[in-house]
Amino acid sequence: MTVMKLIFLGTGGGIPSVKRSLPSIAVKFSGHMILFDCGEGTQRQMMKAGTGFKREMIILLTHLHGDHILGLPGLIYTLSMLNRKDPLIVIGPPGTKKFIEAILSIRFGKLNYEIHVREILDGIAYESREYVIEAVRADHTVTALAYKLREKDRPGRMNAEYLERIGLPKGPLWGRLQRGEPVEFKGRIIRPEEVMGPPRPGRKIVYTGDTRPSDKIVEFSKDADVLIHDATFHSEFEEEALSEGHSTARGAAEIAFKAGVKRLYLFHISPRYEGNEEKLLREARAVFPNSFLAEDLLSYEVPLSD
Amino acid sequence: MTVMKLIFLGTGGGIPSVKRSLPSIAVKFSGHMILFDCGEGTQRQMMKAGTGFKREMIILLTHLHGDHILGLPGLIYTLSMLNRKDPLIVIGPPGTKKFIEAILSIRFGKLNYEIHVREILDGIAYESREYVIEAVRADHTVTALAYKLREKDRPGRMNAEYLERIGLPKGPLWGRLQRGEPVEFKGRIIRPEEVMGPPRPGRKIVYTGDTRPSDKIVEFSKDADVLIHDATFHSEFEEEALSEGHSTARGAAEIAFKAGVKRLYLFHISPRYEGNEEKLLREARAVFPNSFLAEDLLSYEVPLSD
Repeated sequence: MTVMKLIFLGTGGGIPSVKRSLPSIAVKFSGHMILFDCGEGTQRQMMKAGTGFKREMIILLTHLHGDHILGLPGLIYTLSMLNRKDPLIVIGPPGTKKFIEAILSIRFGKLNYEIHVREILDGIAYESREYVIEAVRADHTVTALAYKLREKDRPGRMNAEYLERIGLPKGPLWGRLQRGEPVEFKGRIIRPEEVMGPPRPGRKIVYTGDTRPSDKIVEFSKDADVLIHDATFHSEFEEEALSEGHSTARGAAEIAFKAGVKRLYLFHISPRYEGNEEKLLREARAVFPNSFLAEDLLSYEVPLSD
Repeated sequence: MTVMKLIFLGTGGGIPSVKRSLPSIAVKFSGHMILFDCGEGTQRQMMKAGTGFKREMIILLTHLHGDHILGLPGLIYTLSMLNRKDPLIVIGPPGTKKFIEAILSIRFGKLNYEIHVREILDGIAYESREYVIEAVRADHTVTALAYKLREKDRPGRMNAEYLERIGLPKGPLWGRLQRGEPVEFKGRIIRPEEVMGPPRPGRKIVYTGDTRPSDKIVEFSKDADVLIHDATFHSEFEEEALSEGHSTARGAAEIAFKAGVKRLYLFHISPRYEGNEEKLLREARAVFPNSFLAEDLLSYEVPLSD
């Protein structure tokens, strides 16, 4: 089984605080490190969390506000100091290329590796053998994306009892069936569907970045294992939240409830709640009991949904 | 008496570590906040140190390597979010203007205030009523400056005994004498020199930024109260230190000894010494006993030299 581990690196919003660094979330999955947003301090938070600086690193930016991206210059520089050779993949909304160019124009040292930038607005942001990252437009004050990391469906369980009954021995033939290939055994063709259960759905993590509550995100988050949602303010500041393109803790919980997710993390917490954050959690739990406050360096291993 | 307080915000070099943020030093003096270098994470270290974000803030960059400057974009952005109106003064070597332009070209939000940039190579970087900041060329791989914060000499002590003997009462006349003005008393002119001791030398802090050991810096640091010197490596890596434009702990101590400073802080410590930094301190103290390791969030109040 492949472990899917979520690590909150920075969970504050706008301005960092003593307790919260600026937005960044790492997901370790399938030998890759997927980094959502890269606020100032991300590289040091990675060190504190012990994530390492993987060769297979993909960075996805939700939007180009400073608090979500200004850790990227330092991270890019450090990867070069660490003698990275493999290209770094950076994906974000239109403007991402210009941002990377501005970073490189500073010329604080020459890079040992290339940066491959891709700008998107929605659809498939990245695909590997084991997972897909999709994007959808969020509802913020500037062009902003929400991302979904979706593990590809895993093959159904083998019906071991049935296979033993027909006498097919464990070994290469099982492997081929598991990979979805029909095999010939004792003069007849056995198809995978005959010996395997239905495909098992992959795990899903949705990260909204900065957004107002949005029906599009409800749709995008359907049945997600984890929803990490903008919850900048308490609902006492709902008007301010909406005018600044954000959600309240209650608003985030309503989205989680409508989408039927398994678990909600309140994210992008305003520094004004330092020392008083439980009130955000309380109002979220009143709507969606399985709500949690994201905390810097907190990690969560997403269980298999089976 | 005016307090001169030094606060180490980040003390690592090149790459941050769990223990050390990237270079930045705050000095609170005379109602001003003087910031030397601004490595990534500086704004959050300021929060942790409780320095506040003063209106009178002057930022001096020693050179334009990423580890010394990449906290500036986030700090600039945060000051704007905090509704700063007063201009921010940024001083550094040639290239500083271009760096600030690159930051502003990212356009992560419009600024509420102006940034006044000044590029220098040596001489007086900044002068206020109470202090002068001077620069001298350091010896690094790129154009780099060392800075000295020098409190202006304070007036000598009043000879209270003598003034009482001639009958001059405490009050406005004392004040005028203290400010260096002659006064008329009982039909004769009393000059300040007559009633005051020699001017008392102001306090001095020297920060080298990144540098090889340099005679110019010995000269520049003569009799400083505090010398904060590049001490990237132990002398076992002296060759590497010199080829990369740095000093060893022993090299820093030799400079401190030659300059006759009161106190040396080893600074810009390579992450390779994490957990094993005492060896740097040991070799420095063998040469210059009043050596200390700079530590993140450590502060030191520079005593009056009188």
